[in-house]
Amino acid sequence: MRSKRARRQARRERKEAEAIEAAALQLKTDEKYMKQAIKQAKKAAELGEVPIGCVIVYEGKIIGRGYNRRNTDKSTFSHAEISAMKKAGKVIGDWRLEGCTMYVTLEPCQMCAGAIVQARIPRVVMGCMNPKAGCAGSVVNILQMKEFNHQVDVTRDILKEECSRVLKDFFAGLRSRDKEGRGGK
Amino acid sequence: MRSKRARRQARRERKEAEAIEAAALQLKTDEKYMKQAIKQAKKAAELGEVPIGCVIVYEGKIIGRGYNRRNTDKSTFSHAEISAMKKAGKVIGDWRLEGCTMYVTLEPCQMCAGAIVQARIPRVVMGCMNPKAGCAGSVVNILQMKEFNHQVDVTRDILKEECSRVLKDFFAGLRSRDKEGRGGK
Repeated sequence: MRSKRARRQARRERKEAEAIEAAALQLKTDEKYMKQAIKQAKKAAELGEVPIGCVIVYEGKIIGRGYNRRNTDKSTFSHAEISAMKKAGKVIGDWRLEGCTMYVTLEPCQMCAGAIVQARIPRVVMGCMNPKAGCAGSVVNILQMKEFNHQVDVTRDILKEECSRVLKDFFAGLRSRDKEGRGGK
Repeated sequence: MRSKRARRQARRERKEAEAIEAAALQLKTDEKYMKQAIKQAKKAAELGEVPIGCVIVYEGKIIGRGYNRRNTDKSTFSHAEISAMKKAGKVIGDWRLEGCTMYVTLEPCQMCAGAIVQARIPRVVMGCMNPKAGCAGSVVNILQMKEFNHQVDVTRDILKEECSRVLKDFFAGLRSRDKEGRGGK
Protein backbone atom coordinates (compact mmCIF):
# COMPACT_ATOMS: atom_id res chain seq x y z
CA MET A 1 0.00 0.00 0.00
CA ARG A 2 1.21 3.49 -0.92
CA SER A 3 2.05 5.99 1.78
CA LYS A 4 -0.32 8.86 2.56
CA ARG A 5 2.22 11.23 1.04
CA ALA A 6 2.42 9.24 -2.19
CA ARG A 7 -1.38 9.17 -2.50
CA ARG A 8 -1.56 12.94 -1.97
CA GLN A 9 1.13 13.45 -4.60
CA ALA A 10 -0.76 11.23 -7.08
CA ARG A 11 -3.99 13.17 -6.49
CA ARG A 12 -2.19 16.46 -7.08
CA GLU A 13 -0.69 15.18 -10.31
CA ARG A 14 -4.05 13.89 -11.53
CA LYS A 15 -5.64 17.28 -10.85
CA GLU A 16 -2.84 19.06 -12.68
CA ALA A 17 -3.20 16.74 -15.66
CA GLU A 18 -6.96 17.40 -15.75
CA ALA A 19 -6.41 21.17 -15.63
CA ILE A 20 -3.89 20.98 -18.49
CA GLU A 21 -6.30 18.86 -20.52
CA ALA A 22 -9.17 21.30 -19.89
CA ALA A 23 -6.98 24.27 -20.90
CA ALA A 24 -5.90 22.47 -24.09
CA LEU A 25 -9.53 21.72 -24.92
CA GLN A 26 -10.52 25.35 -24.23
CA LEU A 27 -7.69 26.60 -26.46
CA LYS A 28 -8.81 24.27 -29.26
CA THR A 29 -12.40 25.52 -28.94
CA ASP A 30 -11.27 29.16 -28.82
CA GLU A 31 -9.14 28.70 -31.95
CA LYS A 32 -12.05 27.04 -33.76
CA TYR A 33 -14.34 30.03 -33.19
CA MET A 34 -11.60 32.60 -33.76
CA LYS A 35 -11.14 31.07 -37.24
CA GLN A 36 -14.80 31.87 -37.87
CA ALA A 37 -14.21 35.45 -36.69
CA ILE A 38 -11.25 35.72 -39.12
CA LYS A 39 -13.56 34.51 -41.91
CA GLN A 40 -15.82 37.47 -41.07
CA ALA A 41 -12.85 39.87 -41.05
CA LYS A 42 -11.97 38.79 -44.59
CA LYS A 43 -15.48 39.76 -45.74
CA ALA A 44 -14.75 43.31 -44.54
CA ALA A 45 -11.48 43.36 -46.52
CA GLU A 46 -13.38 42.38 -49.66
CA LEU A 47 -15.46 45.56 -49.24
CA GLY A 48 -12.33 47.68 -48.72
CA GLU A 49 -13.14 48.03 -45.01
CA VAL A 50 -10.59 47.56 -42.21
CA PRO A 51 -10.82 43.79 -41.68
CA ILE A 52 -12.24 43.10 -38.24
CA GLY A 53 -14.55 40.15 -37.62
CA CYS A 54 -16.59 38.80 -34.75
CA VAL A 55 -18.73 35.81 -33.81
CA ILE A 56 -20.83 35.20 -30.71
CA VAL A 57 -21.24 31.68 -29.34
CA TYR A 58 -24.04 30.43 -27.09
CA GLU A 59 -24.27 26.85 -25.89
CA GLY A 60 -21.75 25.66 -28.48
CA LYS A 61 -23.48 27.40 -31.41
CA ILE A 62 -22.65 30.59 -33.31
CA ILE A 63 -25.71 32.83 -32.90
CA GLY A 64 -24.26 36.10 -34.24
CA ARG A 65 -21.71 37.00 -36.91
CA GLY A 66 -20.46 40.45 -37.86
CA TYR A 67 -17.74 42.30 -39.74
CA ASN A 68 -16.75 45.92 -40.06
CA ARG A 69 -18.95 47.78 -42.58
CA ARG A 70 -18.61 51.31 -41.21
CA ASN A 71 -17.93 53.08 -44.51
CA THR A 72 -20.21 50.85 -46.57
CA ASP A 73 -23.18 51.42 -44.24
CA LYS A 74 -22.12 54.99 -43.37
CA SER A 75 -22.86 54.06 -39.74
CA THR A 76 -20.86 54.37 -36.53
CA PHE A 77 -22.65 51.24 -35.34
CA SER A 78 -21.52 48.93 -38.14
CA HIS A 79 -18.52 47.67 -36.18
CA ALA A 80 -18.10 43.87 -36.24
CA GLU A 81 -18.97 43.47 -32.55
CA ILE A 82 -22.18 45.54 -32.64
CA SER A 83 -23.46 43.73 -35.75
CA ALA A 84 -22.80 40.34 -34.12
CA MET A 85 -24.43 41.47 -30.86
CA LYS A 86 -27.55 42.69 -32.65
CA LYS A 87 -27.99 39.30 -34.30
CA ALA A 88 -27.28 37.40 -31.06
CA GLY A 89 -29.78 39.62 -29.20
CA LYS A 90 -32.49 38.66 -31.69
CA VAL A 91 -31.76 34.95 -31.19
CA ILE A 92 -31.65 35.22 -27.37
CA GLY A 93 -34.65 37.59 -27.32
CA ASP A 94 -33.14 39.82 -24.66
CA TRP A 95 -30.80 42.80 -24.35
CA ARG A 96 -28.74 40.71 -21.93
CA LEU A 97 -26.35 38.35 -23.70
CA GLU A 98 -25.71 36.26 -20.60
CA GLY A 99 -24.09 32.89 -21.26
CA CYS A 100 -22.51 34.12 -24.51
CA THR A 101 -18.84 34.23 -25.51
CA MET A 102 -17.65 36.84 -28.01
CA TYR A 103 -14.74 36.11 -30.36
CA VAL A 104 -13.25 39.18 -32.00
CA THR A 105 -10.13 39.46 -34.16
CA LEU A 106 -9.04 42.87 -32.77
CA GLU A 107 -9.27 44.40 -29.30
CA PRO A 108 -12.57 46.35 -29.11
CA CYS A 109 -12.87 50.16 -29.25
CA GLN A 110 -14.46 52.27 -26.48
CA MET A 111 -17.98 51.92 -27.96
CA CYS A 112 -17.86 48.15 -28.45
CA ALA A 113 -16.21 47.54 -25.08
CA GLY A 114 -18.97 49.64 -23.50
CA ALA A 115 -21.65 47.68 -25.37
CA ILE A 116 -20.15 44.38 -24.17
CA VAL A 117 -20.43 45.57 -20.53
CA GLN A 118 -23.97 46.88 -21.12
CA ALA A 119 -25.03 43.54 -22.62
CA ARG A 120 -23.34 41.70 -19.73
CA ILE A 121 -21.42 39.34 -22.00
CA PRO A 122 -19.51 37.12 -19.56
CA ARG A 123 -16.48 36.27 -21.72
CA VAL A 124 -14.59 37.92 -24.59
CA VAL A 125 -11.82 36.20 -26.56
CA MET A 126 -9.58 38.49 -28.59
CA GLY A 127 -7.08 37.93 -31.39
CA CYS A 128 -4.60 40.79 -31.55
CA MET A 129 -4.41 43.94 -29.50
CA ASN A 130 -4.85 47.54 -30.69
CA PRO A 131 -2.17 49.42 -28.71
CA LYS A 132 -3.21 52.93 -29.81
CA ALA A 133 -7.00 52.69 -29.46
CA GLY A 134 -8.02 49.40 -27.83
CA CYS A 135 -10.22 49.62 -24.75
CA ALA A 136 -9.86 46.11 -23.35
CA GLY A 137 -6.40 46.51 -21.85
CA SER A 138 -4.39 48.82 -24.14
CA VAL A 139 -5.49 52.45 -23.64
CA VAL A 140 -7.96 51.55 -20.89
CA ASN A 141 -9.75 48.36 -19.83
CA ILE A 142 -13.48 49.09 -19.91
CA LEU A 143 -14.26 45.34 -19.78
CA GLN A 144 -12.83 44.92 -16.30
CA MET A 145 -13.47 48.12 -14.35
CA LYS A 146 -14.45 47.26 -10.80
CA GLU A 147 -16.65 50.40 -10.67
CA PHE A 148 -19.13 48.93 -13.19
CA ASN A 149 -21.87 46.42 -12.35
CA HIS A 150 -20.37 43.86 -14.73
CA GLN A 151 -16.84 42.63 -15.37
CA VAL A 152 -15.86 40.47 -18.31
CA ASP A 153 -13.61 37.41 -18.33
CA VAL A 154 -10.99 38.23 -21.00
CA THR A 155 -8.75 35.89 -23.04
CA ARG A 156 -6.13 37.49 -25.28
CA ASP A 157 -3.80 36.41 -28.11
CA ILE A 158 -5.91 33.62 -29.63
CA LEU A 159 -4.63 33.15 -33.22
CA LYS A 160 -2.95 36.51 -32.67
CA GLU A 161 -0.59 36.18 -35.66
CA GLU A 162 -3.36 35.27 -38.10
CA CYS A 163 -5.62 38.08 -36.85
CA SER A 164 -2.80 40.57 -37.13
CA ARG A 165 -1.76 39.26 -40.58
CA VAL A 166 -5.23 39.97 -42.02
CA LEU A 167 -4.89 43.61 -40.91
CA LYS A 168 -1.27 43.97 -42.07
CA ASP A 169 -2.07 42.51 -45.50
CA PHE A 170 -4.98 44.91 -45.84
CA PHE A 171 -2.91 48.01 -45.03
CA ALA A 172 0.01 46.80 -47.19
CA GLY A 173 -2.48 46.43 -50.06
CA LEU A 174 -3.75 49.97 -49.51
CA ARG A 175 -0.22 51.37 -49.51
CA SER A 176 0.79 49.55 -52.67
CA ARG A 177 -2.38 50.67 -54.49
CA ASP A 178 -1.67 54.19 -53.27
CA LYS A 179 1.89 54.00 -54.67
CA GLU A 180 0.70 52.63 -58.02
CA GLY A 181 -1.87 55.38 -58.17
CA ARG A 182 0.75 58.03 -57.66
CA GLY A 183 3.17 56.25 -60.06
CA GLY A 184 0.56 56.34 -62.81
CA LYS A 185 0.04 60.06 -62.58
CA MET B 1 -10.25 112.98 -25.32
CA ARG B 2 -10.00 109.93 -23.07
CA SER B 3 -6.64 108.72 -21.84
CA LYS B 4 -5.05 105.58 -23.29
CA ARG B 5 -5.73 103.83 -20.00
CA ALA B 6 -9.42 104.75 -20.05
CA ARG B 7 -9.78 103.52 -23.65
CA ARG B 8 -8.13 100.24 -22.76
CA GLN B 9 -10.46 99.87 -19.77
CA ALA B 10 -13.52 100.58 -21.94
CA ARG B 11 -12.40 98.00 -24.51
CA ARG B 12 -11.94 95.41 -21.78
CA GLU B 13 -15.40 96.10 -20.38
CA ARG B 14 -16.99 95.87 -23.82
CA LYS B 15 -15.33 92.49 -24.42
CA GLU B 16 -16.52 91.23 -21.04
CA ALA B 17 -20.07 92.37 -21.75
CA GLU B 18 -19.99 90.60 -25.14
CA ALA B 19 -18.73 87.38 -23.52
CA ILE B 20 -21.49 87.50 -20.89
CA GLU B 21 -24.10 88.12 -23.60
CA ALA B 22 -22.79 85.21 -25.70
CA ALA B 23 -22.83 82.90 -22.65
CA ALA B 24 -26.40 83.94 -21.82
CA LEU B 25 -27.47 83.29 -25.41
CA GLN B 26 -25.73 79.88 -25.38
CA LEU B 27 -27.45 78.97 -22.11
CA LYS B 28 -30.82 79.96 -23.55
CA THR B 29 -30.19 77.81 -26.65
CA ASP B 30 -28.96 74.89 -24.54
CA GLU B 31 -32.07 75.06 -22.34
CA LYS B 32 -34.32 75.18 -25.38
CA TYR B 33 -32.90 71.94 -26.78
CA MET B 34 -32.64 70.26 -23.37
CA LYS B 35 -36.41 70.79 -23.01
CA GLN B 36 -36.81 68.78 -26.19
CA ALA B 37 -34.60 66.04 -24.74
CA ILE B 38 -36.79 66.00 -21.60
CA LYS B 39 -39.85 65.58 -23.85
CA GLN B 40 -38.18 62.47 -25.26
CA ALA B 41 -37.40 61.18 -21.74
CA LYS B 42 -41.10 61.42 -20.85
CA LYS B 43 -41.93 59.15 -23.80
CA ALA B 44 -39.71 56.49 -22.22
CA ALA B 45 -41.54 56.86 -18.87
CA GLU B 46 -44.86 56.28 -20.66
CA LEU B 47 -43.52 52.89 -21.77
CA GLY B 48 -42.35 52.07 -18.23
CA GLU B 49 -38.72 52.55 -19.30
CA VAL B 50 -36.15 54.53 -17.27
CA PRO B 51 -36.79 58.06 -18.63
CA ILE B 52 -33.73 59.24 -20.53
CA GLY B 53 -34.06 61.39 -23.64
CA CYS B 54 -31.76 62.83 -26.27
CA VAL B 55 -31.80 65.17 -29.24
CA ILE B 56 -29.05 65.96 -31.74
CA VAL B 57 -28.82 69.42 -33.27
CA TYR B 58 -27.08 70.34 -36.54
CA GLU B 59 -27.03 73.88 -37.89
CA GLY B 60 -29.84 74.99 -35.56
CA LYS B 61 -32.12 72.05 -36.42
CA ILE B 62 -32.95 68.87 -34.53
CA ILE B 63 -31.93 66.01 -36.84
CA GLY B 64 -32.19 63.10 -34.39
CA ARG B 65 -34.41 62.29 -31.43
CA GLY B 66 -34.27 59.26 -29.15
CA TYR B 67 -35.47 57.87 -25.85
CA ASN B 68 -34.67 54.78 -23.83
CA ARG B 69 -36.54 51.69 -25.13
CA ARG B 70 -34.16 48.98 -23.96
CA ASN B 71 -36.75 46.63 -22.47
CA THR B 72 -39.43 47.39 -25.07
CA ASP B 73 -37.07 46.64 -27.97
CA LYS B 74 -35.14 43.96 -26.02
CA SER B 75 -31.99 45.61 -27.37
CA THR B 76 -28.81 46.85 -25.72
CA PHE B 77 -28.64 49.50 -28.43
CA SER B 78 -31.99 51.15 -27.71
CA HIS B 79 -30.48 53.76 -25.42
CA ALA B 80 -31.66 57.33 -26.09
CA GLU B 81 -28.29 58.49 -27.42
CA ILE B 82 -27.79 55.59 -29.87
CA SER B 83 -31.30 55.98 -31.29
CA ALA B 84 -30.78 59.72 -31.80
CA MET B 85 -27.33 59.12 -33.35
CA LYS B 86 -28.71 56.56 -35.80
CA LYS B 87 -31.31 59.03 -37.03
CA ALA B 88 -28.80 61.90 -37.21
CA GLY B 89 -26.39 59.66 -39.14
CA LYS B 90 -29.07 59.00 -41.76
CA VAL B 91 -29.71 62.74 -42.18
CA ILE B 92 -26.00 63.62 -42.37
CA GLY B 93 -25.27 60.59 -44.58
CA ASP B 94 -22.03 59.76 -42.78
CA TRP B 95 -20.82 57.83 -39.73
CA ARG B 96 -19.11 61.06 -38.61
CA LEU B 97 -21.48 63.43 -36.82
CA GLU B 98 -19.16 66.40 -37.12
CA GLY B 99 -20.79 69.76 -36.47
CA CYS B 100 -23.48 68.20 -34.27
CA THR B 101 -24.36 68.93 -30.64
CA MET B 102 -25.94 66.21 -28.51
CA TYR B 103 -28.36 67.10 -25.71
CA VAL B 104 -28.99 64.28 -23.25
CA THR B 105 -30.92 64.35 -19.97
CA LEU B 106 -28.56 61.99 -18.09
CA GLU B 107 -24.79 61.50 -18.23
CA PRO B 108 -24.05 58.79 -20.84
CA CYS B 109 -23.04 55.19 -20.02
CA GLN B 110 -19.79 53.59 -21.23
CA MET B 111 -21.35 52.41 -24.52
CA CYS B 112 -22.96 55.73 -25.45
CA ALA B 113 -19.90 57.75 -24.39
CA GLY B 114 -17.80 55.45 -26.58
CA ALA B 115 -20.21 55.89 -29.50
CA ILE B 116 -20.04 59.69 -29.14
CA VAL B 117 -16.22 59.56 -29.44
CA GLN B 118 -16.42 57.11 -32.38
CA ALA B 119 -18.87 59.42 -34.19
CA ARG B 120 -16.66 62.43 -33.40
CA ILE B 121 -19.51 64.50 -32.02
CA PRO B 122 -17.83 67.80 -31.07
CA ARG B 123 -20.11 68.87 -28.20
CA VAL B 124 -22.32 67.13 -25.63
CA VAL B 125 -24.69 68.97 -23.29
CA MET B 126 -25.91 66.99 -20.28
CA GLY B 127 -28.72 67.46 -17.78
CA CYS B 128 -27.97 65.57 -14.57
CA MET B 129 -25.05 63.33 -13.71
CA ASN B 130 -25.11 59.59 -12.98
CA PRO B 131 -22.61 59.25 -10.09
CA LYS B 132 -22.60 55.43 -9.98
CA ALA B 133 -22.40 54.60 -13.68
CA GLY B 134 -21.86 57.75 -15.77
CA CYS B 135 -18.88 57.77 -18.12
CA ALA B 136 -18.61 61.47 -18.91
CA GLY B 137 -17.00 62.58 -15.66
CA SER B 138 -18.47 60.44 -12.86
CA VAL B 139 -16.91 56.94 -12.92
CA VAL B 140 -14.60 57.79 -15.81
CA ASN B 141 -14.57 60.46 -18.54
CA ILE B 142 -14.48 58.63 -21.88
CA LEU B 143 -15.49 61.84 -23.70
CA GLN B 144 -12.28 63.65 -22.82
CA MET B 145 -9.48 61.09 -22.72
CA LYS B 146 -6.35 62.59 -24.26
CA GLU B 147 -5.31 59.10 -25.46
CA PHE B 148 -8.18 58.97 -27.99
CA ASN B 149 -8.17 60.67 -31.41
CA HIS B 150 -11.20 62.78 -30.46
CA GLN B 151 -12.15 64.79 -27.39
CA VAL B 152 -15.60 66.21 -26.76
CA ASP B 153 -16.49 69.67 -25.48
CA VAL B 154 -18.76 68.96 -22.48
CA THR B 155 -21.39 71.19 -20.81
CA ARG B 156 -23.00 69.89 -17.62
CA ASP B 157 -26.01 70.76 -15.42
CA ILE B 158 -28.32 72.24 -18.07
CA LEU B 159 -31.88 72.02 -16.61
CA LYS B 160 -30.31 69.64 -14.11
CA GLU B 161 -33.22 69.80 -11.65
CA GLU B 162 -35.85 69.10 -14.30
CA CYS B 163 -33.84 66.22 -15.78
CA SER B 164 -33.33 64.72 -12.35
CA ARG B 165 -37.00 65.23 -11.38
CA VAL B 166 -38.20 63.13 -14.35
CA LEU B 167 -36.03 60.24 -13.10
CA LYS B 168 -36.99 60.67 -9.43
CA ASP B 169 -40.72 60.78 -10.25
CA PHE B 170 -40.36 57.62 -12.32
CA PHE B 171 -38.61 55.67 -9.55
CA ALA B 172 -41.00 57.03 -6.87
CA GLY B 173 -43.87 55.79 -9.07
CA LEU B 174 -42.28 52.34 -9.35
CA ARG B 175 -41.79 52.14 -5.58
CA SER B 176 -45.37 53.19 -4.78
CA ARG B 177 -46.78 50.69 -7.31
CA ASP B 178 -44.55 48.05 -5.73
CA LYS B 179 -45.91 48.90 -2.24
CA GLU B 180 -49.53 48.82 -3.43
CA GLY B 181 -48.85 45.49 -5.06
CA ARG B 182 -47.52 44.03 -1.84
CA GLY B 183 -50.33 45.66 0.24
CA GLY B 184 -52.95 43.96 -1.95
CA LYS B 185 -51.55 40.49 -1.36
